[in-house]
Formats: sequence, structure tokens, C-alpha cells
Amino acid sequence: MESAVRPAPRTSRVPQHGITGLVRQGEREPTWLVRAEKPVQYEVRMVDDLLDPSRSDLAEAGVTERTDHRRFVVIDANVEAHYGRRLRAYFEAHRLEPWFCTLAVEERSKTMDSVTRVVKELDKFGISRRHDPVIAVGGGVLLDIVGFAASLYRRSTPYVRVPTTLIGIVDAGVGVKTGVNFESHKNRLGTYFAPALALLDKTFLRTLDERHVCNGLAEILKIALIKDRELFELLEAHGPELLRTRLQPTSVQDDTGQQVLERAIHGMLQELQPNLWEHELHRLVDYGHTFSPSIEMRALPDLLHGEAVNVDMALTTVIAHGRGLVTEQDTSRIGRVMRRLRLPQYHPVCDATSLITALEDTVRHRDGYQRLPLPVGIGDARFVNDVTPEEIARAVDTLAAGGLDAR
Amino acid sequence: MESAVRPAPRTSRVPQHGITGLVRQGEREPTWLVRAEKPVQYEVRMVDDLLDPSRSDLAEAGVTERTDHRRFVVIDANVEAHYGRRLRAYFEAHRLEPWFCTLAVEERSKTMDSVTRVVKELDKFGISRRHDPVIAVGGGVLLDIVGFAASLYRRSTPYVRVPTTLIGIVDAGVGVKTGVNFESHKNRLGTYFAPALALLDKTFLRTLDERHVCNGLAEILKIALIKDRELFELLEAHGPELLRTRLQPTSVQDDTGQQVLERAIHGMLQELQPNLWEHELHRLVDYGHTFSPSIEMRALPDLLHGEAVNVDMALTTVIAHGRGLVTEQDTSRIGRVMRRLRLPQYHPVCDATSLITALEDTVRHRDGYQRLPLPVGIGDARFVNDVTPEEIARAVDTLAAGGLDAR
Ligand SMILES: NC(=O)c1ccc[n+]([C@@H]2O[C@H](COP(=O)([O-])OP(=O)(O)OC[C@H]3O[C@@H](n4cnc5c(N)ncnc54)[C@H](O)[C@@H]3O)[C@@H](O)[C@H]2O)c1
Ligand SMILES: NC(=O)c1ccc[n+]([C@@H]2O[C@H](COP(=O)([O-])OP(=O)(O)OC[C@H]3O[C@@H](n4cnc5c(N)ncnc54)[C@H](O)[C@@H]3O)[C@@H](O)[C@H]2O)c1
Repeated sequence: MESAVRPAPRTSRVPQHGITGLVRQGEREPTWLVRAEKPVQYEVRMVDDLLDPSRSDLAEAGVTERTDHRRFVVIDANVEAHYGRRLRAYFEAHRLEPWFCTLAVEERSKTMDSVTRVVKELDKFGISRRHDPVIAVGGGVLLDIVGFAASLYRRSTPYVRVPTTLIGIVDAGVGVKTGVNFESHKNRLGTYFAPALALLDKTFLRTLDERHVCNGLAEILKIALIKDRELFELLEAHGPELLRTRLQPTSVQDDTGQQVLERAIHGMLQELQPNLWEHELHRLVDYGHTFSPSIEMRALPDLLHGEAVNVDMALTTVIAHGRGLVTEQDTSRIGRVMRRLRLPQYHPVCDATSLITALEDTVRHRDGYQRLPLPVGIGDARFVNDVTPEEIARAVDTLAAGGLDAR
Repeated sequence: MESAVRPAPRTSRVPQHGITGLVRQGEREPTWLVRAEKPVQYEVRMVDDLLDPSRSDLAEAGVTERTDHRRFVVIDANVEAHYGRRLRAYFEAHRLEPWFCTLAVEERSKTMDSVTRVVKELDKFGISRRHDPVIAVGGGVLLDIVGFAASLYRRSTPYVRVPTTLIGIVDAGVGVKTGVNFESHKNRLGTYFAPALALLDKTFLRTLDERHVCNGLAEILKIALIKDRELFELLEAHGPELLRTRLQPTSVQDDTGQQVLERAIHGMLQELQPNLWEHELHRLVDYGHTFSPSIEMRALPDLLHGEAVNVDMALTTVIAHGRGLVTEQDTSRIGRVMRRLRLPQYHPVCDATSLITALEDTVRHRDGYQRLPLPVGIGDARFVNDVTPEEIARAVDTLAAGGLDAR
């Protein structure tokens, strides 16, 4: 072996710190520091009647200069039943060739297996990772599954979100989270992966059954309670009407539904944008999401996501009331709105012991502290770390005995 | 229903463009533009004898102010057999309590099922998403699986990479890619997820069998061929010696192995850092990775990753030679180094038809163009888009007839 001479220090080849993001340090045991920033950008667009062939939003969604006429569409089976024909006509009008992957999914099949089905179909389609838009049309369950599949496929394939439920429009459709349940754990596996575009069309809500409208109103109520008193007042004044009309206008002048949606989406995005990757664990939008993951999974298929969230909000409102953060009167108002929106405030799986365990799991997820958002009056909130088992037990008793406005 | 009046424009609540990354536009059909940057930073550290109890690198890896004494360690079964005892002694010396998850994995079990096993174990351990470091100890297969599991678990759980193979030290251990195979597709599912820290200890190579050392030298040869002629010369001068010594020093002065590793790692990081998420599809480090994913999967378990990469490099060197980009003499030198590093230049699965299909799949992955790095002399490269089926067929014939330096 030739005598090994240490080569001239390679500092000449090492770019400067902060300029390119690669720093090499140390001589005998070198260290490299690798730094970069990943830019993320996406658009959330409200549109009226997306499937009107004269509109080009969907035809152009996710399109690049090299996209051809094919479109890969994953669609919820129920949505297919309602809108499949119009959707096909839409694509035909735009001379596009959709490839449909229809999934009959529900919360219990929000699993890795469903992700695998989408992946197989992407393989069959032979998708171009950059130029074939993956279009996801459905509720939160479908969007979470497809977003997850797209984020993993070839380590990321762009996709477009078209939510068709109210939860989808105000929550699952506008953020960057994807995921599936694992064993009995809600959203245990997932990614942060922004869509290329989210297209929100409230006319899809026309065919949604009442219970799923209520379900979405729970997430809207969440935003109202923690940060938007005016939104609360809109729900208070128009709740049953919104339910009945599915948030559609009843006349040319009527834009209550639109107002409610805009406020809810705007409030949601204000909370999400500065914290897309949830590094900050004090998240106002976690309101209603402390006990609910466990309640939802244990009550399956009894409670929908928003219903479980509402039970959680009822519980935490009672706790907040017990601490003097919400007045007697406001507690009753909240309870009345929940009742008029047909949202449950209690479910038999809510025994104190399980809720305390649920809180422990959430504490692990929130890095050792409760960081529990509690309402302060209506339209404001604060974080606490000291909710006690006794408070939880007392709140459960109150709810079991009839709820917030029946005390 | 009360008469619905459009509320005062909500622009007062809308943050400015560019300042907070949320812009609301439009009145009747509002649009929101959401923007953010995700900062990524990680350290790659070379260490000598990581398991020496007097060293604190591993004990402190991924530790925060609130980490307790538990450590979650996923380890390759073969590595366990060699180093389990020392590793346990190490943790004991630091009064740490490791929880071992031992996986017997190989390329054929680099699948979602293996990821699921890690996830189940993380659940059992009850990991704190921020304070319990996940430590992955093993070759590229294990690192890819564990990195993938960590990136999905609760939408991201930090992890530490401790590569124990040469491929791991110069490639799989230093970047941000994770993933598993799906059906017959190499790395079809995966994520970009930086480790908190990568600890590179070449003393692990002592127990690696020769074939896996050759395998790693193929990736080092790749870096040499595309961008580092001096590194090529080191391999040319010391190849068989490096193989025999497993890159360990033969005397106090001897740092050939260390030099080779540092150059290879530095070159690799220089290519990776500006393009962590592979938005730029002209990637020099893709050299040897155009035909090899398909060759590797079809030849399983015959060819190792680096061996398949070498077959690809041999093939593309012949093509480059055919185009006058590499001289006759350099072609022979390259062939000789490959032979002396005991790297195959051919495998029977390499018929022209399958290679042309493989190129087509890669073209899809590279967005419609070949973007094929071809060597230019030794230590430089260029991208081409016009390799023809005939060139591939001719190159296969050359290799089948004996390889680069036997023409
Ligand atoms: N990723 C996120 O940020 C996020 C946010 C909130 C909720 N979620 C997830 O969303 C899921 C709940 O979503 P969901 O409430 O939309 O449930 P869902 O997707 O199950 O949809 C509800 C039901 O309505 C049907 N449906 C959908 N659109 C319809 C339409 N236009 N007309 C008639 N029927 C229609 C569906 O087939 C389904 O039966 C949960 O899994 C929750 O975890 C995710
Ligand atoms: N993520 C990335 O950026 C990246 C880069 C390159 C390669 N890879 C992946 O890495 C994989 C190949 O990795 P690999 O070559 O390390 O294979 P490997 O992980 O299968 O390890 C090779 C063999 O060596 C054994 N082993 C590991 N360390 C040992 C040691 N110190 N002593 C004795 N035996 C030991 C293993 O048990 C295995 O049998 C491929 O799947 C490839 O796709 C990933």
C-alpha cells in the first residue's frame, strides 16, 4: 500500500455556512451540518358549482404545461353514486379522460390497507409523478387516505382536494394533514403534505345527510367558540335553518351559509398557517380534540368525528364553567346551540376512567403537558395544564345528567 | 330566518401577504394562498468506536432536556448478533435502559409489513414523540424501514441513524430518504425525513462480509466517477487493500480508509444538500440508478444494491465510451477498478428489452426525460436525454462478452 498522505484540507471545496447549508467541521472526526428550507405553498379556493362544465377549475387543477388529457380521480363510493354522472360529463365536456378509482370507505376502513389500494391503482395507471394530477373527491376519510397515499407514492405525488362533506370543506380539506388509523389509534400514521389545490364547493352539501351536516357544524362551532364570537352568533341565530338548507342560499340575497363557511375557513387557516407542521403544541384548533380521538375510536361506529369533538367541547365547557371561565349564561347558550345543531354532549363510553386515560395519551402527544384549550367566555380560549381527574369526573356527571343547558 | 347581511369585509383580520403567509383574495368566491417554509437541519458526525463507553455521542443522541433514561433501539438482527453485547454494556455504563426491537430484515422484507412491526413496537413502548429518541442501528435496509416508520408515526417522530454497513455510511445513512419496496417496485413508497443525527462509525465495517464491502465501494466509485477524480485514484491505488482491511487503518499513520470515506461522504452531501426533496431532477447521484432499480428487483436475491448500481455504471460507461465521452484508456481503467473491487458488470437479467423498459420507468420518475448522467472522462459527468435502444443493446453485448476491460 502506498504511504497514505492526508490530502490538502478540503475546506476550499466546502461552501460557507448559511450560504448553501452545508458546513463541514472538525479534522479527525469531521462533522457536517446540513441545512435547508422546504417551501410549501397551496391555494384554497371556494367555487360555486364546480361541476358546471363552463367552469375550468377542476379541469385545470394540478395541471402543468406537460399534463395530457388523463386524470386520476379517487372518489368516495357514495359521492360517485350522487355525482359520478355529472363528473363524467364534466370531464367529457373538457375532453379529458378520467380514470376512476372508487373507494367505499368509512372511518373503520381508514387504514393502511385502503392506502395500499390507492397505491396499486396509481401503479396500474402509470402515473407521471409531476404531470398527472391525483384528484381526491370525497369526505374527510377519503381525503385523508388519498393524501396519505399521494405523499408516500414515489416519496410525493401532487394531489388536489375536493371535499364533499362539511367537515371536509371547513377542516380536512383545507390543511396539510393526512393519515390513517392504526389498530385502535386514531390517525396514528400520517404525514404533513399540502395539496396542490383545494377546491371547496358547498353545493356538494345538498346531498349530504343531516347527521353529517351537524357533524361539520361541530367543527365550525369549535372555531366560533375559541376565536369568533360573531360566528357563534350566526350559528345561534341560524343553526336549524343552516341545517335544513345544508348551508345553501334560500334566496339571491341570502348568504348566511356562505358567511359561516368563509369565517370558519378563514379562522381555521389563520390557526393552521403559522403552524403547518405542528411544532407549536399550543394549538387552538386542538379544542375539542383532547378526549375526542379516544371517544371516537371507542364509540365506533356510533359517533362521527364531529360528534365526538362536540362531546369533548361539552365536557371542556363544563370544566371551564367550573373554573369560572365561562358564565352560567354562556354555558347555557353554548348548550342550546349544540342541542339545536343536534350534536350529542354525551356518550356512554365517556366514563371518567377512560377519559383520564385518553387525556394521558393526548399528553404524550402534546409532549408531556395537557396544553388543553379551555373556552373563555364565547370566542376566546386559554391553555391549561392542570385539569384534574375530579374535574373530569364531575363534568361527566353533569353531561350524563342532561347536558349544558339542562343543568 | 333573519335577513342575512354580508359582514364588513374581513380584510382587517387578514394578515399581509409575505408577512404571515396567508393571503385572502376575492369577494364572491374567495381564495386563500397559504405559504410557509419548513426548516430542516441535521448533523452527520463521524466517530471512532461509537460503543466505547467513554464516548457520549450515542447516549446523548436525540436527547432533549426532558428525555429520561429509556432508549428505543431498532437493530438489525445480524448487527445484534455482533454488537448486542457491547451495545447493552454501553447503555448500562451510561445508566440507560434500552428497549430493543430486533428485526431480521433483508431487501425482500423491505416492505410495509416491516414498517408495521416497528409501529406496533413504538406503540408498546409508549414513545414520547419529542423526547424518546428512536435509534436505528443497521444497514440501508433497516435504516430505510425505521426512517419510514418514524416519519409516519404520529406524523413524525425524531430518529437517529447509526449505519453499520458501507452503503449505510456513505449513502443510506447520510441523506433524508426513507422507504420500502412495493410489489416489484423498488422504493415505491417513502418519505423525505431527515434524521436528528447520523453517527458514522467505520469500525462497524470490521465484521461486514467482503461482498457487502464491495457493495458499498460501488457507491463510493459512483461519487468518484461523476465528481472526484482523486477519489477514483485512491480506489485505483488501494482497492484490494481497502477491501481486505474493511477500510480500517493498518497503522497509526494510515488513513486511506478514512480519506476515502470523508471524500465520499462530503461529495454525497454536496450533491444532496441543495436538493433534499429532489425537486431538481438532474441529480448526479442518480448515476448508476437509472437501470439498477429494475435490475436489482428482478435479480433478487442475486444482486445487492451496489452490485446492481455497478452493472448500471458499467453499462453507461460503455454507452459514454461509444459516444466518445470516455476514452478507451479510461474505460479500461474503470473496468479494472470494478474488477479489482469484485463488482459485477453484468447479470443475465440484463437483456436489452428489460433495460429499455427499465429506462421507460425511470423516465416517468424523472418527469418525461431520461436525464441520464453519463460519465465524462473520470470525475465528471453530463446529462443526456437521447440514449437509444440500439446503444443499450450494444452495451449489453459488450458487457455480456466480458466487461469493460476485456473488450
Ligand atoms: N386531515 C385533517 O386535517 C382532518 C381534519 C378533520 C377531520 N379529518 C378526518 O375526517 C374524517 C371525517 O370526515 P367526514 O366527516 O367528511 O366523513 P366521511 O368522509 O366518512 O364522509 C361522511 C359520509 O358522507 C358521505 N358523503 C361524502 N360526501 C357526500 C355528499 N356530497 N353527499 C352525500 N354523501 C356524501 C360519505 O360517503 C360518508 O358516508 C375523520 O376520519 C377525521 O379524522 C381530518
Ligand atoms: N435512503 C437512502 O438514501 C438509501 C441510499 C442507498 C441505499 N439505500 C438502500 O439501502 C439498502 C442496501 O443497504 P445495505 O447494503 O446496507 O444492505 P443491508 O441493510 O441489507 O445490510 C447488508 C447485510 O449486512 C448485515 N450487516 C449490517 N451491518 C453489519 C455489520 N456491521 N457487520 C456484519 N453484518 C452486518 C445485514 O444484516 C445484512 O445482512 C437498499 O435497500 C437501498 O435501497 C437507501
